[in-house]
Amino acid sequence: MNQIDRIEKALHKALDDATRQSPPKLKAAMRAAVFPGGGRIRPRLLTSVAEALGDPDPAMTDAAGAALELLHCASLVHDDMPCFDDADLRRGRPTVHKAFGEEIALLTGDALIIEAFALLARAGASRPERLGQMLALLAGAVNGSTGIVAGQAWESERVVDVDRYHRAKTGALFEAATMLGALAAGAPPEPWRNLGALIGEAYQTADDILDAVGDAESAGKPVGQDEHWQRPSVVEAYGLDGAIARLDTLVERAGDAVPAVGDRERLVGLVAALATRLCPPELRAHP
Amino acid sequence: MNQIDRIEKALHKALDDATRQSPPKLKAAMRAAVFPGGGRIRPRLLTSVAEALGDPDPAMTDAAGAALELLHCASLVHDDMPCFDDADLRRGRPTVHKAFGEEIALLTGDALIIEAFALLARAGASRPERLGQMLALLAGAVNGSTGIVAGQAWESERVVDVDRYHRAKTGALFEAATMLGALAAGAPPEPWRNLGALIGEAYQTADDILDAVGDAESAGKPVGQDEHWQRPSVVEAYGLDGAIARLDTLVERAGDAVPAVGDRERLVGLVAALATRLCPPELRAHP
Repeated sequence: MNQIDRIEKALHKALDDATRQSPPKLKAAMRAAVFPGGGRIRPRLLTSVAEALGDPDPAMTDAAGAALELLHCASLVHDDMPCFDDADLRRGRPTVHKAFGEEIALLTGDALIIEAFALLARAGASRPERLGQMLALLAGAVNGSTGIVAGQAWESERVVDVDRYHRAKTGALFEAATMLGALAAGAPPEPWRNLGALIGEAYQTADDILDAVGDAESAGKPVGQDEHWQRPSVVEAYGLDGAIARLDTLVERAGDAVPAVGDRERLVGLVAALATRLCPPELRAHP
Repeated sequence: MNQIDRIEKALHKALDDATRQSPPKLKAAMRAAVFPGGGRIRPRLLTSVAEALGDPDPAMTDAAGAALELLHCASLVHDDMPCFDDADLRRGRPTVHKAFGEEIALLTGDALIIEAFALLARAGASRPERLGQMLALLAGAVNGSTGIVAGQAWESERVVDVDRYHRAKTGALFEAATMLGALAAGAPPEPWRNLGALIGEAYQTADDILDAVGDAESAGKPVGQDEHWQRPSVVEAYGLDGAIARLDTLVERAGDAVPAVGDRERLVGLVAALATRLCPPELRAHP
């Protein structure tokens, strides 16, 4: 099975387990929040790290990848709601609150967060010695202190440290991806932190470039949001050329940051492919 | 230390740990969501069960009780929001979205959910053999299938099984309270399920009575909500006298359901005290 199929299968299983007795609207909304997905970049990164380490415990890898993606999807559902971005479209389709109402959208995000932890706890029961560490990593990537929720909440503050904001809003989940991939394979996670952090920064830079010069159709979501909401943006800070140069540097550093493991070359290749995906040539050729 | 002080101390520690690096508004909002508290009925029930079993692992008991209460507080913050009850007051004070805005209220609920799982995972790392089971119980009490989130989502359906709705919305968290109390003390949880379920039913019945005939001041929240939102209510189903008779029966059955443990009498006493608290004499003496 190729990697994408493997991740989709794990997500389908997670959703089936999570919605067995759910009210019909909530069940449909949870499904709409997760399928069809975007690039599944975070679980792909996690799975690639585990595979580079031999992937001795594939069920654990699948659960950790799915948990990470459920948290990412939950954050999108809540971010799209009227009190945040008030977005009508996500991945070219109606957002969850547009399709199912705000109350179901709020509950959908909650349910996906809860299921992420439940899923990892179930899979980790057979590896109790690692379970606490994996859950702590997952929580740190999304919580109100260092994770996505903190990142979102910094947008409500007048004084913001931009690096800290981006690290929380984007970086933490990428760091968790590489580190959880290592842990799922029974390897120490620390050597993988820097790779995740650099890819996270590259991703945030590419997202800011896309928001500044992309169009809604290819982005699958509204663009120009950073300026509209006066959010800190790499493009605003460095200019467009500066942002593209920064992205290239980050991708190069990420390639260098891949630890010397058995299948290092494949991972370096993945990082390069990700870079092209993140910032396609047509964005570089801006007018 | 008495039980209430013990629970408050555990909650303060949990919030301190959870908000160490949080943005200031989110930090203040999380604190306002948890302090000052209501009756802390769920962690008191959990702690009482653990104590009846000798409470050999108090740090685990405290973490499980605090986790349960954080989830309860999270559900209140999200339930009060405009897309649900649109409540201005909770425990006689402005609700979180009234005081901090909707976006911070949404994030506050998310952060409290995440912290509940993180907290239990941290405490359970020293008891890995029980951690998976405790996390599964916690998740089942709040998730979108059998827990609070499912209970809320049933309110958006046209066809609802009232027992199933109440079990999810209220009962699941009380069941988790007694069962987690047993697990925290290293005892099998199953004998404690029925006690939690009966107290949960009693609590729901008392809440419906309060909503039908109480006043906002003593309730600390708006009353008449079940009728206003056309929610299923025990009072609507059985009439007021029928609801009070049902409450008395449930409390009696709950007393009988306390397993034969060392300090059984104290737990039976707690159930009786809870009943008086749930349905004070002035509500029984309705006109």
